[in-house]
Amino acid sequence: MKKLLIVNGPNLNLLGRREPEIYGSQDFDSFLQTLRQQYAGRAEIDYFQSNTEGVLIDRLQQDGYTADGIILNAGAYTHTSLALADCIRGITSPVIEVHISNVHQRESFRHHSFLSPACCGVICGFGLDSYRLAVEALLNA
Amino acid sequence: MKKLLIVNGPNLNLLGRREPEIYGSQDFDSFLQTLRQQYAGRAEIDYFQSNTEGVLIDRLQQDGYTADGIILNAGAYTHTSLALADCIRGITSPVIEVHISNVHQRESFRHHSFLSPACCGVICGFGLDSYRLAVEALLNA
Amino acid sequence: MKKLLIVNGPNLNLLGRREPEIYGSQDFDSFLQTLRQQYAGRAEIDYFQSNTEGVLIDRLQQDGYTADGIILNAGAYTHTSLALADCIRGITSPVIEVHISNVHQRESFRHHSFLSPACCGVICGFGLDSYRLAVEALLNA
Amino acid sequence: MKKLLIVNGPNLNLLGRREPEIYGSQDFDSFLQTLRQQYAGRAEIDYFQSNTEGVLIDRLQQDGYTADGIILNAGAYTHTSLALADCIRGITSPVIEVHISNVHQRESFRHHSFLSPACCGVICGFGLDSYRLAVEALLNA
Amino acid sequence: MKKLLIVNGPNLNLLGRREPEIYGSQDFDSFLQTLRQQYAGRAEIDYFQSNTEGVLIDRLQQDGYTADGIILNAGAYTHTSLALADCIRGITSPVIEVHISNVHQRESFRHHSFLSPACCGVICGFGLDSYRLAVEALLNA
Amino acid sequence: MKKLLIVNGPNLNLLGRREPEIYGSQDFDSFLQTLRQQYAGRAEIDYFQSNTEGVLIDRLQQDGYTADGIILNAGAYTHTSLALADCIRGITSPVIEVHISNVHQRESFRHHSFLSPACCGVICGFGLDSYRLAVEALLNA
Amino acid sequence: MKKLLIVNGPNLNLLGRREPEIYGSQDFDSFLQTLRQQYAGRAEIDYFQSNTEGVLIDRLQQDGYTADGIILNAGAYTHTSLALADCIRGITSPVIEVHISNVHQRESFRHHSFLSPACCGVICGFGLDSYRLAVEALLNA
Amino acid sequence: MKKLLIVNGPNLNLLGRREPEIYGSQDFDSFLQTLRQQYAGRAEIDYFQSNTEGVLIDRLQQDGYTADGIILNAGAYTHTSLALADCIRGITSPVIEVHISNVHQRESFRHHSFLSPACCGVICGFGLDSYRLAVEALLNA
Amino acid sequence: MKKLLIVNGPNLNLLGRREPEIYGSQDFDSFLQTLRQQYAGRAEIDYFQSNTEGVLIDRLQQDGYTADGIILNAGAYTHTSLALADCIRGITSPVIEVHISNVHQRESFRHHSFLSPACCGVICGFGLDSYRLAVEALLNA
Amino acid sequence: MKKLLIVNGPNLNLLGRREPEIYGSQDFDSFLQTLRQQYAGRAEIDYFQSNTEGVLIDRLQQDGYTADGIILNAGAYTHTSLALADCIRGITSPVIEVHISNVHQRESFRHHSFLSPACCGVICGFGLDSYRLAVEALLNA
Amino acid sequence: MKKLLIVNGPNLNLLGRREPEIYGSQDFDSFLQTLRQQYAGRAEIDYFQSNTEGVLIDRLQQDGYTADGIILNAGAYTHTSLALADCIRGITSPVIEVHISNVHQRESFRHHSFLSPACCGVICGFGLDSYRLAVEALLNA
Amino acid sequence: MKKLLIVNGPNLNLLGRREPEIYGSQDFDSFLQTLRQQYAGRAEIDYFQSNTEGVLIDRLQQDGYTADGIILNAGAYTHTSLALADCIRGITSPVIEVHISNVHQRESFRHHSFLSPACCGVICGFGLDSYRLAVEALLNA
Repeated sequence: MKKLLIVNGPNLNLLGRREPEIYGSQDFDSFLQTLRQQYAGRAEIDYFQSNTEGVLIDRLQQDGYTADGIILNAGAYTHTSLALADCIRGITSPVIEVHISNVHQRESFRHHSFLSPACCGVICGFGLDSYRLAVEALLNA
Repeated sequence: MKKLLIVNGPNLNLLGRREPEIYGSQDFDSFLQTLRQQYAGRAEIDYFQSNTEGVLIDRLQQDGYTADGIILNAGAYTHTSLALADCIRGITSPVIEVHISNVHQRESFRHHSFLSPACCGVICGFGLDSYRLAVEALLNA
Repeated sequence: MKKLLIVNGPNLNLLGRREPEIYGSQDFDSFLQTLRQQYAGRAEIDYFQSNTEGVLIDRLQQDGYTADGIILNAGAYTHTSLALADCIRGITSPVIEVHISNVHQRESFRHHSFLSPACCGVICGFGLDSYRLAVEALLNA
Repeated sequence: MKKLLIVNGPNLNLLGRREPEIYGSQDFDSFLQTLRQQYAGRAEIDYFQSNTEGVLIDRLQQDGYTADGIILNAGAYTHTSLALADCIRGITSPVIEVHISNVHQRESFRHHSFLSPACCGVICGFGLDSYRLAVEALLNA
Repeated sequence: MKKLLIVNGPNLNLLGRREPEIYGSQDFDSFLQTLRQQYAGRAEIDYFQSNTEGVLIDRLQQDGYTADGIILNAGAYTHTSLALADCIRGITSPVIEVHISNVHQRESFRHHSFLSPACCGVICGFGLDSYRLAVEALLNA
Repeated sequence: MKKLLIVNGPNLNLLGRREPEIYGSQDFDSFLQTLRQQYAGRAEIDYFQSNTEGVLIDRLQQDGYTADGIILNAGAYTHTSLALADCIRGITSPVIEVHISNVHQRESFRHHSFLSPACCGVICGFGLDSYRLAVEALLNA
Repeated sequence: MKKLLIVNGPNLNLLGRREPEIYGSQDFDSFLQTLRQQYAGRAEIDYFQSNTEGVLIDRLQQDGYTADGIILNAGAYTHTSLALADCIRGITSPVIEVHISNVHQRESFRHHSFLSPACCGVICGFGLDSYRLAVEALLNA
Repeated sequence: MKKLLIVNGPNLNLLGRREPEIYGSQDFDSFLQTLRQQYAGRAEIDYFQSNTEGVLIDRLQQDGYTADGIILNAGAYTHTSLALADCIRGITSPVIEVHISNVHQRESFRHHSFLSPACCGVICGFGLDSYRLAVEALLNA
Repeated sequence: MKKLLIVNGPNLNLLGRREPEIYGSQDFDSFLQTLRQQYAGRAEIDYFQSNTEGVLIDRLQQDGYTADGIILNAGAYTHTSLALADCIRGITSPVIEVHISNVHQRESFRHHSFLSPACCGVICGFGLDSYRLAVEALLNA
Repeated sequence: MKKLLIVNGPNLNLLGRREPEIYGSQDFDSFLQTLRQQYAGRAEIDYFQSNTEGVLIDRLQQDGYTADGIILNAGAYTHTSLALADCIRGITSPVIEVHISNVHQRESFRHHSFLSPACCGVICGFGLDSYRLAVEALLNA
Repeated sequence: MKKLLIVNGPNLNLLGRREPEIYGSQDFDSFLQTLRQQYAGRAEIDYFQSNTEGVLIDRLQQDGYTADGIILNAGAYTHTSLALADCIRGITSPVIEVHISNVHQRESFRHHSFLSPACCGVICGFGLDSYRLAVEALLNA
Repeated sequence: MKKLLIVNGPNLNLLGRREPEIYGSQDFDSFLQTLRQQYAGRAEIDYFQSNTEGVLIDRLQQDGYTADGIILNAGAYTHTSLALADCIRGITSPVIEVHISNVHQRESFRHHSFLSPACCGVICGFGLDSYRLAVEALLNA
């Protein structure tokens, strides 16, 4: 059984409440419950959320040498945080970048990710199913 | 009586002590006391300061569905924080961006604000009176 | 009693008629009447509008050494007129830049102002109340 | 059972032979055979490859109103073809953009995709498994 | 005896463990011990590390009016943090920017520093010896 | 019979005299006479020229709610005047942008038009026949 | 009687079916029939469409020394094809660039045309009437 | 005796009064009187000033076919007016661009002149003596 | 005897007929005949031309593992085709980029080549002799 | 009597021989002889030419504390030499930048001068008379 | 017999010693000896090397009106020297730009050459054989 | 004892005389005398200065295979000389880039160094002490 970690960045705690026309109306906890059931026996999925860049880094460092894979939706820090990118390069667990919306259909500042070159792969635009596809990818790696 | 919140970002706790030729020599607490007296009975003005981007987001999320208005001087995060801008878009209280100095007379990296398109309005260049003008705007809204 | 001048630039004579979803449906004359009543005894508010850059400069030069403050909405010239900026630098009355709409939520060419660094402060996004806030600022200066 | 189409663009017929350190050493036909078996009964997967931009458009137009989903690896046309992007916008089947390698770790001209804003989602960096994840996404849509 | 402070930013707690081909294999604690011995009697060297931008600012503000000099390796925040630069401008202790690697030989986003114009000097490329050279500079100032 | 207005901007009063290798040697009055005869009974064609941006705006505002169509050759203001573009957006008559020369074969600063996105269509490069084609377009609208 | 050729580029075979809010709901064949009738006896209008850049070049080369005029709507190749521009420069028949929509009101990548400097003139924004205006221009040349 | 015209643009009527540390404290009339005396018998020097771009164009057109030379200080229009540049290209009298201050030591937007390529020569940085040097140049031409 | 292939891209079939002041008046066939005679016994020179990017790729793939060298004049595709560049990287025969004219003396969009970094060398500006020099280079390799 | 120095940079020794359609056909020596005669008794004019940047700096340093003025035509170094600009800032004699041709009518790389902000003034476009105007300026200073 | 000159710029005297993985391990003198033998009777090949830009210009001027051709490898000056480009334009002998390595595969600042538009042709990427190909080109001119 | 070389570039011979508010008032010779005494017995410090780029290269090549370290202040050539950077890459002695002033607090063209990626480290902003710190670094290497 693989040990996975999902890390959500700033404002993703508002999911279901924040701009539902973009992010959908499901909250993350109910999604996570379903996901864990779906992959029960194959993956143990830990979860963490913070609005603070440095606290996200702390957590990635903590699990980044033992987890079999990390699924990271860094929210807006995707586009501004070199420190997160450096952290991903510094740890050894494979990290997949995910996005709920198709960021390429939105404001131009969301088209560039500092994290993508540090991650092993990117999945975006499938709603919450983006997270499940990342689990699929890590189980198949 | 309207419930307002003033949020100050990084280094604004140094006010009165930091580069007084730009930011003036009055500290924020004494200004806040005067402001509250001036609008007593019309506005209840809460106050918060932090140097940490994520902690500012935490607080905006906490009051951002109940306050009648938020006055935000995000300091240097104005020019770098997409996460704060996303937060402002995600909450429902109207947010006004204020600056003490006229940022357009200063270094070019201070001319662009990631927050302005997410806020309802912008007031800059009037010293600490910028905050009072924002209170005026929110009371008149 | 302070002597103030409001100067409106190109197409602002169409107010109430032009793109009301952006600029509102009130015409400027009725707003001005209310504003003068509100500040009667504290401010004498003169008014001028022209579609011609040079004629706006003529008027700013004419009052720019005697008025206690000038409130300038230069419309589209905000983004193209170095000559207006030079004029503001050349006169001695303080000039406040105002905008009805939040220009930062609109086309990118409206995000840059040649006038801001020459003005003492900027107020934008509060509808016609932007003008009143500028009066407040000048009376408090 | 869903009707899917995989479309590969220029030089992807060289797979297994071309720069194996980037693209791997498996040829696409053997991968396709496995993929069809894996999803037998759930998806009927058609396949097309061409080196010519216009011929790719011809095929997308042909199936683009009847397929339940299209998986497109447009190779280098990803970064240069507005015509393909217009085609994707013009048809009604959902299109997923996939890449074998993590394009964000490679030359800077591979970081921008004209197709991403026209597609419903993007998956990159998982080797040939990127195609399988896209099948997963379409079956779950 | 001069009172000095070394401040390390994000991911520098991974030193010795993170990308040793770039940052070397010595951990910072053992280096610090040697450094303190080398300058015993001439400098009292305090040390602080955090992954959080705002916490780094908190600490710089705390010692920034009393320390005889601060040696700052802000890691990735070097290239993104205007708030740190504002903090350095706001305090009165001289700050020296140091880097272990020669950042100009690495990715282009590491070539620009927001901190350099706020610091009194910059030292980069000498491995951990960069810190010692900064101590030398502060003792000689 | 449709009521049309042709508006010519700066230096177009020099037509026939100014750089004839670019603009031809016919003066506008003789062309206008022919044009009116050609469309007699189908269109009433008014004409206005000024070298002053604001005066052009004055005239567009004056006819811009009653004319069935306006044909605008704004000359050099095409490339610099946001105020004219705002005016076109503010009025209700359809405006067609015309140019005598093919501006795309000339200096690069002539390749961008601030007016094009505000107009309904653009016609350029056909000499004075550009005006006639615009009349055709308006009669067929 | 003049010999004219209309050439349509990629995705224009989808006309009437593709994004009708932009391109209208009339298919090109029915329009072409009307156009030929309207100019019967004055112009013989040949027609060609392809999605392939090189096949469009083949056809332009074939007729480009004998046709009295070519009307080219190169679709998305307008913005990417230097090869088409070179072809237009290499042949001797005059070529007019047309667009159905006003490309300047759409995405920024549609604002630049590689073909415009090679063509004799440009007509855009008049729906299918853009083609008729080009016929008018060629008959009057 | 040569017939010369000096044309001054926006805000140059404020000379002696406006930012004297940049433009000096002499008003233009007194300078002009001295200049005319100095070149009496060799040059007849006419003078014109306006703050309006179009009025400056009107005057350049009026004298631009008969004057032996025109000395133009277009002030801020130097950096924004394509219409003035087109006017200079359209007339036949030689035009010299002059500036009182060394514009290259000032804000970067003053470093580019739209007029320079249309003028025969440029003289800047010599205070009011720039005008006299232009007279010298025209008398020697 | 070495097996060489010359591949010509779009519009090069017009050689001798197209813009002779740039490309000369000799057609390629007569040049090729001379070239083959000149190198008879040392090189067997095959030849291919197409206006279609994908067809050029097809041919390069076909010979790209067996030819001793390929001489490629990709015409305008030089400046736009990443797909051709990928193809050159994917095959194993050495490819030399040639141009008849000195592209650096022409429009700026001809100064950048996507193919150069993928080719082993570049020769431009020698008229048709550029091809012969490439043969020389390949025979000497 | 004022002590002046004229310094000519690279390729100006070819004057009269090099591209006479741009630089004229007079050689500099004959011009210098005339100039010295014209200002005999008012100015002593020394002259120096070199093709080497560092040798030009050597000479400027040598005379730069004693000459009453230096007239510098740095040729192509105008657009590339920060070292010359630093030298001009380091010496105390006033330096005037001159150019024979109107550099603003030529290639865009000639439009920017590193020297202009370091010089007291700029004169360009008057042929060899540019040097005489600079003498005039220095005598009047 | 043709009189040719080879000119090598900065650091090319280190050939064989400097970065042999890029420039090869043969020194230039031994190559030159072979080259002269190979073309004995057909070309007289003079040779010059300097590290100083101005000294290279001196030599090009000296031979630039009499040599039948010049082969120039300006090394790093290729990318920075407008003065060399002006020199090439000023002399009359044809100049060919050569490079040993394929500069387009190296750092981006090596992709642009100021010399290319001034030279008649460019040859790069063939090692020392680039020089021989240039001799071939000049003998065939 | 280590053999070190200090190389100073253009205008650094003016030290103590040139802009003392930036570079200080001490001349380099007196500083050098002190430095040699301070490191007597540990380092033999040779010194060279030239205003000419090529002569600096000559000297770097001469000592660049035998010195134990080179300390280079290339002055303005830091920002323009690719040839110096190539030289540093070509030699084998380690080179440290030093600057007296903090170049990041000055004009933007001083923020980029072509030399930094070729040097082993950079030290700037410590006045003449920058040179001493470089000696320290080399002795510790």
